[in-house]
Amino acid sequence: MNEHGHDHGYVADKEAYLKRLRRIEGQVRGIAKMVENDTYCIDILTQVSAVTKALQAVSLGLLDDHLASCVVDAARSSTDEGEEKVREASAAIARLVRS
Amino acid sequence: MNEHGHDHGYVADKEAYLKRLRRIEGQVRGIAKMVENDTYCIDILTQVSAVTKALQAVSLGLLDDHLASCVVDAARSSTDEGEEKVREASAAIARLVRS
Amino acid sequence: MNEHGHDHGYVADKEAYLKRLRRIEGQVRGIAKMVENDTYCIDILTQVSAVTKALQAVSLGLLDDHLASCVVDAARSSTDEGEEKVREASAAIARLVRS
Amino acid sequence: MNEHGHDHGYVADKEAYLKRLRRIEGQVRGIAKMVENDTYCIDILTQVSAVTKALQAVSLGLLDDHLASCVVDAARSSTDEGEEKVREASAAIARLVRS
Repeated sequence: MNEHGHDHGYVADKEAYLKRLRRIEGQVRGIAKMVENDTYCIDILTQVSAVTKALQAVSLGLLDDHLASCVVDAARSSTDEGEEKVREASAAIARLVRS
Repeated sequence: MNEHGHDHGYVADKEAYLKRLRRIEGQVRGIAKMVENDTYCIDILTQVSAVTKALQAVSLGLLDDHLASCVVDAARSSTDEGEEKVREASAAIARLVRS
Repeated sequence: MNEHGHDHGYVADKEAYLKRLRRIEGQVRGIAKMVENDTYCIDILTQVSAVTKALQAVSLGLLDDHLASCVVDAARSSTDEGEEKVREASAAIARLVRS
Repeated sequence: MNEHGHDHGYVADKEAYLKRLRRIEGQVRGIAKMVENDTYCIDILTQVSAVTKALQAVSLGLLDDHLASCVVDAARSSTDEGEEKVREASAAIARLVRS
């Protein structure tokens, strides 16, 4: 239980998210290695696109979990809480779309 | 009132959305005119990026309206309906992020 | 021949680009029709993502044509012209990536 | 000098790229720490968007360097080499735009 009085949606899949993030961390280290070894630019760019896609998938997962738990719970508890959570989620979606 | 038993979130702003879409339609026509007139490629690309941003803003607005009305209403009516609406919204967000 | 002393790369495919742009224009009109008819938000969002993808494909085509003609020609004519065209192309790519 | 017979464009800025990649690697580790600590979903999403933007900037830099060196050099050496490098660069741009 956290300061929001309930577990965040992603907590049930915490280990899966941590595994994916460790893999992404390793991929970023791998890109640095490619730069160190003067690897051909296009090959580095291909790897960076792969990491961006992996991060995107993490974001979409977290967002889905957030909508399904925090936003739905807030909608059920009060109109104001529901509106605040939707406002927050929409701002996060805008950042994600524009990144 | 529509087949979902309530007005969609965007209906209150319908005129604003229609105005924005007409403007986007005009911008696309303008891009075609640039191509017809052998305009410099970079200038055309600048216009296409502007139209893409305008479309993105329409999507983010519709999504925010959808979350605030359809998804919140469903969450309040039943667990199953809430889950279905969140699943649908997350799939739409994924398409938006990946387009 | 235009003010840049050569045909832009896309000119050879002008009809194909015009056909795609007319189709996109029709799709935007179709989205406005959906809004007028109180169509379900998710279905409208699906159409907007399709239009965004179609615009993206137009941009990538124009960019490829631009690199293959304007940028390559400039690179062959002088170092300064080559650098200016690359600078311009990179700025257009950044706008495209961030839109 | 590498197997392509010249230094890749980014080699002159290698240290700067390595510094940025190490920072990104640290940010990804930071996100994992947030997940471990049950941090609020929206705050994690904000961080992921920041990392995605940082990666995007690395890609745009590498692409600019690549156009200014590898593609320009190839354009000057032969038509075939120029075309091949443009084809490759356009494919990398498409992956970047779609990631």
